[in-house]
Parts: sequence; structure tokens; C-alpha cells
Amino acid sequence: MSLIQVATKLDYKLESPTSFIFSLMPALNPHQIIQQENLILNPYLPYETFNTDNCGGRSLRLTVQSEFFSIDYAATLALQVNTADPYTLPETPYLQLPPEVLPYLNPSRYCESDRLGRFAYKTFANFPSSYARVAAVVDWVYQHIEYLPGTTNASSGACEVLLQRAGVCRDFAHLSISLCRSLGIPARYVSAYAPGLEPPSDFHGVFEAYLGGHWYCFDATRMAPLSSLVRISTARDAADASFATIIGKASLTNMQVSASNLSSQETVSAGLVISMS
Amino acid sequence: MSLIQVATKLDYKLESPTSFIFSLMPALNPHQIIQQENLILNPYLPYETFNTDNCGGRSLRLTVQSEFFSIDYAATLALQVNTADPYTLPETPYLQLPPEVLPYLNPSRYCESDRLGRFAYKTFANFPSSYARVAAVVDWVYQHIEYLPGTTNASSGACEVLLQRAGVCRDFAHLSISLCRSLGIPARYVSAYAPGLEPPSDFHGVFEAYLGGHWYCFDATRMAPLSSLVRISTARDAADASFATIIGKASLTNMQVSASNLSSQETVSAGLVISMS
Amino acid sequence: MSLIQVATKLDYKLESPTSFIFSLMPALNPHQIIQQENLILNPYLPYETFNTDNCGGRSLRLTVQSEFFSIDYAATLALQVNTADPYTLPETPYLQLPPEVLPYLNPSRYCESDRLGRFAYKTFANFPSSYARVAAVVDWVYQHIEYLPGTTNASSGACEVLLQRAGVCRDFAHLSISLCRSLGIPARYVSAYAPGLEPPSDFHGVFEAYLGGHWYCFDATRMAPLSSLVRISTARDAADASFATIIGKASLTNMQVSASNLSSQETVSAGLVISMS
Amino acid sequence: MSLIQVATKLDYKLESPTSFIFSLMPALNPHQIIQQENLILNPYLPYETFNTDNCGGRSLRLTVQSEFFSIDYAATLALQVNTADPYTLPETPYLQLPPEVLPYLNPSRYCESDRLGRFAYKTFANFPSSYARVAAVVDWVYQHIEYLPGTTNASSGACEVLLQRAGVCRDFAHLSISLCRSLGIPARYVSAYAPGLEPPSDFHGVFEAYLGGHWYCFDATRMAPLSSLVRISTARDAADASFATIIGKASLTNMQVSASNLSSQETVSAGLVISMS
Repeated sequence: MSLIQVATKLDYKLESPTSFIFSLMPALNPHQIIQQENLILNPYLPYETFNTDNCGGRSLRLTVQSEFFSIDYAATLALQVNTADPYTLPETPYLQLPPEVLPYLNPSRYCESDRLGRFAYKTFANFPSSYARVAAVVDWVYQHIEYLPGTTNASSGACEVLLQRAGVCRDFAHLSISLCRSLGIPARYVSAYAPGLEPPSDFHGVFEAYLGGHWYCFDATRMAPLSSLVRISTARDAADASFATIIGKASLTNMQVSASNLSSQETVSAGLVISMS
Repeated sequence: MSLIQVATKLDYKLESPTSFIFSLMPALNPHQIIQQENLILNPYLPYETFNTDNCGGRSLRLTVQSEFFSIDYAATLALQVNTADPYTLPETPYLQLPPEVLPYLNPSRYCESDRLGRFAYKTFANFPSSYARVAAVVDWVYQHIEYLPGTTNASSGACEVLLQRAGVCRDFAHLSISLCRSLGIPARYVSAYAPGLEPPSDFHGVFEAYLGGHWYCFDATRMAPLSSLVRISTARDAADASFATIIGKASLTNMQVSASNLSSQETVSAGLVISMS
Repeated sequence: MSLIQVATKLDYKLESPTSFIFSLMPALNPHQIIQQENLILNPYLPYETFNTDNCGGRSLRLTVQSEFFSIDYAATLALQVNTADPYTLPETPYLQLPPEVLPYLNPSRYCESDRLGRFAYKTFANFPSSYARVAAVVDWVYQHIEYLPGTTNASSGACEVLLQRAGVCRDFAHLSISLCRSLGIPARYVSAYAPGLEPPSDFHGVFEAYLGGHWYCFDATRMAPLSSLVRISTARDAADASFATIIGKASLTNMQVSASNLSSQETVSAGLVISMS
Repeated sequence: MSLIQVATKLDYKLESPTSFIFSLMPALNPHQIIQQENLILNPYLPYETFNTDNCGGRSLRLTVQSEFFSIDYAATLALQVNTADPYTLPETPYLQLPPEVLPYLNPSRYCESDRLGRFAYKTFANFPSSYARVAAVVDWVYQHIEYLPGTTNASSGACEVLLQRAGVCRDFAHLSISLCRSLGIPARYVSAYAPGLEPPSDFHGVFEAYLGGHWYCFDATRMAPLSSLVRISTARDAADASFATIIGKASLTNMQVSASNLSSQETVSAGLVISMS
């Protein structure tokens, strides 16, 4: 078990009354036990919270009339991941995939798996249909895609990333997800706090593949230890996992995101695969 | 209330054992009361059914080992749509949209609403934020897009349709959905049986927009009366609403889809807007 | 006749020996009589010049070994455009187009006219096949595309501009060119100095259409008077008209481009169409 | 020297008066000496011929008023290619590329080399900058792209081919050209008659790369012997090399293309690289 501290502060300048949905609080589920949570809105305003997915994701919605607005959130939580020996994990035969998992085989906005079938098959068909095939996808993405901010933008999907051979964490996740789906392996996007993220950034984007009856976590950027990731949203792809959705005219003037692992030692042995749900 | 008869027969030739998911049975919900339903599989095989959406959509999953396989489905159902006077229907303010409706504002595989914001705003901003704005979108799509089979393919999304100015029913739906989402109006895809479809085709694709607290049905192709549509699947877009998903090697050798309205008269007055859910 | 002064200064920092091709000198042709021309290279290096097109375009090529390099060019030239009464200008029938003009009907990297045929025909078919049709294209682009730096990038072509409804001068030109070609009107790209450019920018991009046996100049941005434009390059599209091509590793650290009309008065009556070649 | 016989017959049905440009006659240059040439137009009509490129390419232009039209062309020609030992062929340093060759480094409609730089560099940078690098490109394309008619269409460029991993001869050529240009090697498209094409098809599309001061011919499909190819058009890409350009409404009702090598033996030793110009 790890003790993790996370915090986000966002400052906005508004040109008109604006509605916001923020998705920056850790998901509530048995793996992430909140011990302390602090939310400061300035100005203070009534807000609504609601669940956004089946993994405990939650959002906060409110409307702001003032010229300036800031949200300042912090939490401490106990993280308890499940682990498995990866070499025991088979792909789940199609007929045994639970119906609720099936949509994660379909293409989505940023994961055009329908266009990558031939490439995926040519490149990964020879790997055993198990954990090893997902690991091969992750290795391939890590080795062939350069982490290079500025090469992609908000409308770039996996196909563009594969052509450009560069992107940021969400692009690495989208390409990995697309390749898994092309191979018949359900895969989904997770936005997260990532203690130890190197180089430091704000929110992190990783992905989960469905193997042996559970969702396991992968990160083709290899920029942060998986065992201390804190799940925020779980989604088809980043189109459903924005940290802030803005309806109106507001610009972000300041953004601070931090995450740190308060536990003195890494609690998960290397070589195990992590399940956060 | 209308009495509708629908039927589908699909014949496949298999090169290898193949798993199928069929989504061709009418959804089960209070608007569509099945009176009689017949399913013939040849060869007969055990199968599983499961729900696929919140509107009663259901799928049938099975694995076939033989060289030939056919599925022959027929049903008679009583259709009872809700209607409303369209001019009473406002857009729902963002803050009042139920959380489960919010994902239908996000872009999806074939509905890249994130790329069409400026076009949608320039073209439709001057219409009142209500039913009239959705009607303007539908009119625009009807007038500017040509119904022309062969111009798009399985990977074409709304952006391509808008550029090409041509497509088939699913393309008309995808473009309409994208424009609605760009304008802040939740919209989703419905695959359906369409009695009276002219020119005759197989399954039909239409869309629903969320107005005044309900989902209302629209069809920018104007190829079939909305009041006798039979809902099959309800989804983000066609990526989640295939009538047949095939895992293996099988080719469709014959396809027959039919739908007819057994009621002697149109039961919904022109000018009313239809809600199927 | 106008007297125009143009100047460009570019400073580079090099990480490795780098070859450059600069295309920033006014084209040499009977319409643009150079009166004085000044070129300072720092450090001074041998260079080669060569013609790049049939309109007098010229480039300068050299290799730099040092860490810093700057090119400082200035010229004064007498500009003598031809004019015509636009309403006398017909489209040239296809069979009478000179062979050397035919390539300007084909699609090119940033002008995917092959994809815009249906849109172009639907939108502009009703205009008379003459100057009026090109004018309609230019009006349409001016009215529907927003001048908004940052919305497009170096890989954006006309299709993307049409979808996004925004871009910069080269995007306005590419879309106009594409629509003309789709309509059977030869069109090409011109990079230019533009005295009076408002808002001030660096080089300008406009286009020419072939009408009545000559190339006439158009600018869908309406940001500068056409009668004082100084032609630099003439090309299929911006892919062939970069002001600087860099083979190696060099970054532009400073860029100054200026152009001014030294003549006291506008010498071309409004309403006439301009031919620079 | 080989003796080659080529023939094309095209039948059209017209809905309106239509102008045609046909590019199906072998180019006239010292490597291709026409011995006999036969052209039958039915109905017979006056036509114009003109040169289309610097390699002797020529086109035929005419307007047809009748309901049916056919063109029947046949020629016998003596083919004399130049050969070189490939391992003597260096890349030409950028500064020494003749100015007329430089445009073949720029991206074009179907060869978006500007988008493939990182991929090309990662994949081919370690090969020596010479013939070996072009050969590596050709091998890569041959091994990774499937020859599969129906996977691409008239608007597909190299990026789409690279994603899809499938295409036809023109797609193989476009991708090879794009990768060469990305690597700084000028490359261009050649449409040709291909005796021995296997599987038989109609016209063939190959490409040339500029090495050691000459253009050498490559074919990533490996479907026909290079030494008996007969050049028709030479162009930036297929956008400039259509065998028939149609202005009006006409449909091709029949098409026969044939090419055969009348010489009894292969006259070029394997392992030599071919220059047709």
C-alpha cells in the first residue's frame, strides 16, 4: 500500500459567464481510499458532483459569473493495487468477453483501430495471444514514437501519431489502445496523477488492456511508475476524459498539478503487472 | 399505434471458425412491444443474448464452426411513439443536462465535432437555441449532401462527408450528430428498421437530439417516415452499432432486410416531432 | 507605375553545417524593373543563383559552416502591372488552354481540388463561366474563412482549411486555388511582398487564375492592395514557394520583412483586375 | 536493345460533348525509338498533340461530340536503356543538385513527404547515403505493403498507404517517392507500359530516384522487369500522369492495354540499375 498526495490548482479569467466540468478528483473505488480531501473554490460557488464511469470517476460541475475563478483541490489517499504475474495472463477469447467490455474493441475518436488492422496484424500477429502481445505493442510504441510536445494537437488521433512518429502521453496511449483493439484486445484510456513523472508534466494519460478477466495498466511512455498512479477518469479515449470542459469563454491563466508518493519505498515488485480496478 | 413487421436474413460462407455478434433484433422498451418473434439459425447453435445500451438494444453472440451459416429473424411489434409539438422544445441548458447525457456531446469515431465548431457556429448560431436549431441542421444536411452510394466507405467520418458533399444514410446521421454536438446539443446514432424507406435499402441510420429533457428523432435523408421507425441500436455513432460484428473469416453471401407498416394509416400528424424513448 | 521598396533580414543560428535556398528576391520580369538591389551576407559566402519558374522567380543557394548567419536583402523596383476590365474576361475553353497551363488544373500538395469537385460545383456552378466565377470564389472564401493565425500549420491543405473555416494568407490562397481548379479554371500560387499589408505580416501569399488568355491576381484575404504586390515565386502551391529551404539544423532567430509603396498615389483604378505577368 | 510492342484501346460512351486528353503514347526520347505507330480514332476527329514533360512525354487532346468514341493506339519501339553498377551510385549532395531537379524534393498531392520525415529518418538513416538507401526504401515498401486492389482509391496518398499497409502500383510508387524525398533524395513518378507485368494489369506506375547525376528506375511492386518498361509520362506524382483526363460526361466502357517484349532474351544483366533518361 502506498500513501499518495495529489493536488491541482487552476486559475481562470472569464470573458462571459461560463460553465465548467472538472474531472480532477481521484476516482472513488476500493483501490483508492481517500484519507483527506480539500476543495477550495474562489469565489465559493454551489456545485454538483456526479459519477462519470464505472471505475469511480467523478466530476464537478458549476457555473461561474465572476471575472476570475480558481479551483484548488488536494487529497491524500491510500493506494492499493492488485498485481499479477504477467505470464499467467491470457487474452480472453472473444466469446467470453463480458458484454460491458465489448465497446472497448470498437474504434473511437482518437483511436481509429478500424484503419490499423493490417499494420497491427503484420506487426504483432506472431506474438502469443496473451500478456506478451500487449507487452509487444507497448514496446513497439515506446521504441518507435518520440515523446515530443508540440508535434500533435487536440485533434490528433492514433493514425496521425503513427505517421508522425511523435507525440505526448495521450498520443502514446491512443496508439497503444488502437493497436490492441485492432488485435482483438479490449483497451481503454485512463487519465491519472503520476507521482514520479519524469520529465514532470501535469496530468498523465495511460491505458488499460483487458487480459485474463481483468483490466491491467500499461504506459508506453515509461515516464512514471505504474504502481503509484492515481486513477482520475476511465474512458474510450481522451475525448471522454478532459480534466476541464469549458462552455463559455474562459482562459486558463495558471495551472499547477502535483503528485507525490509519501511511502518510503516502492511496494510493488518489478515485473508484476498492475490492476487498478 | 402502428403494427410493424420486420425481417432479416443473412447467409454467410466461412473460411474458419468465426464468432458473430448480431444486432438486428428490435430494442425492447415500452415503445416497441414485441408481439411475435421468430429466430432460425441454420445450423442451429447455442447462443447468448445481452443488452447493449440503455434503450433496450440487444445483441446475440455465437460461434460457428461449419462452412455455411444463416440467421433468419422476423418479428411483429406494436409501435407507440411519443410526440411533441416541436415549437415547445427548448435546448436544455448545459448545467441541467443529466450526467448520462453528457458523453453525447463529445466527439466520437465518425463524429469529429471538435473539428467542426467554427463551421457549425457560423452556419447555425443565428437560429434560436431550440428545436429550430436542430431543424436547421437537418435542413442544411438534406440540402447540401447528396445521397450517393459509393462515395464513402467504412472509414469515412463526418468531416469527409462534409468535404465530399455526398454519402449514405449513416453519413447523413454522422454529419448531423457532429453539427449538433458542436452546437452544444447532445446527439446520438440510432440504427433502425425503416418501413417505407425510399429508395429501398437495408438497415437505416438516423439520429436523435436531446431537447427539452427527451431524445427526439431526426433523419436528414428524409427517406422514410419517422413515425414507423423501429429502433435496433442506440450508440455514439455507427462504430457502436454494426448489425454484424465478425471475428474470423466469413463473407456475407446473401442479405435480405425488410420492414413494413401493417397499419392502414399514418398515425402521427405531420409536424409533430417523434420520441422513441 | 509604382515605385516599391522591399527588404528582408533573416538571422539564423546553426547547429551543424547547413545548406539554404532563399527565395526572397523579387522575380525578374518586364513588370518588375529592379532599380537598386542590395545583398549582405554575414559572414560573406559564395552563393549560386538560379531561376525557379517561368515568371522570373529566382533563388539563391549556399552552404554555411559558421554558427551564425544572416542574410539582409533590399531592393527598389518600378512596378508596372497590366490591368483589364474584369467583365471582359471569359474563362478559356478547355481545348484552348495552352499546354503549359494545364498542370495548374491538377491537384497539388496543399490544393486537393480532386476532393472538392462536388462542393465547388454545387456552390459556384450558377455563376457565369468567366471572371465572375473566380470573383464568386474569392468572395466566398473571404466571407467564410476567418483570418486566424495558429489554426493551421505547415501540413494543412485546402480541405482542412475548408473544414476549420480559418487560416492565414497561404490557406486562403490554397482554398481559392483548389476551388478554381475544381471548376476547371487554372490557378496557381504567388508569394509576394505586399506594401500596405494590414494587419502587418511578413511575406504574403495570393493566387492567380487564368482568364481570357492571361493570369490575373486575386487575394481572398483582402489584406493588401493588389496593384502594389511584388511577385517573388510562382508555383503550384506553397510547397514550391518557401522563402527559405533549410537542409541541416538551423533555427531562425530573427525575421524582418518590409515593403512600402513610395509612390504618392494608387495608380490603378479600383474595379480593374491586375495582371502581373 | 529490346523490341517492344504496346497497344491501348479505350471505348467511351458520352452523355455530353466531352474533351479528352490522352497520355498513352510512349514518350519520345533517345531511349525509345518508335519504329511503327498506329492511331485509330473512331469517329475520326482532328486532334492536337503536345509535350507534357522534359522526358519526351506527349499528350493528345480533342473534343468529341458523338455518343460513342474509341481510341486505338499501337506502337513498336526499340528500347535502349542505360545501366549502371548500382554500387557506384552516390546520392548527389544537396548543393550540387541541378536546379531543375529541386522540385522533386518537394511534397506533392499524393506524396506528402513533409509528413513522413521522422519515420523516414528513423527507418532509413543508418543506410549509406547512396543507392543502398533507395534500395532499402524499395525493399521496405515491398515487404510492408500488400498489393491489394480495392484498398485505396483515387484520393489516397502515401500517408494513407503507409497506414493501410496496402495498395496498388501507383500507391507503392507514391510511398517510395515520399520516403526518398523525406530523405533528401529527389524522386518522381513514371507511368509506363510494362511487358511481363504479373499479375497482368493495365498501365504500370513506377518511380525514379536521382542518384549520381542521373534518374534511375525502381519498382517496389517487383511485378515487372524494369529493363523492358516503356515510359509514358514523367511527373511529380500520379496527379500529373493520368492516361485520360476527361472534361465532360463520358464513361469508359472497355479498356485493353497490352505490352510485350518481342526480343527473345533479357538484355540487361540482373543487378544493374536502369536509367531510362
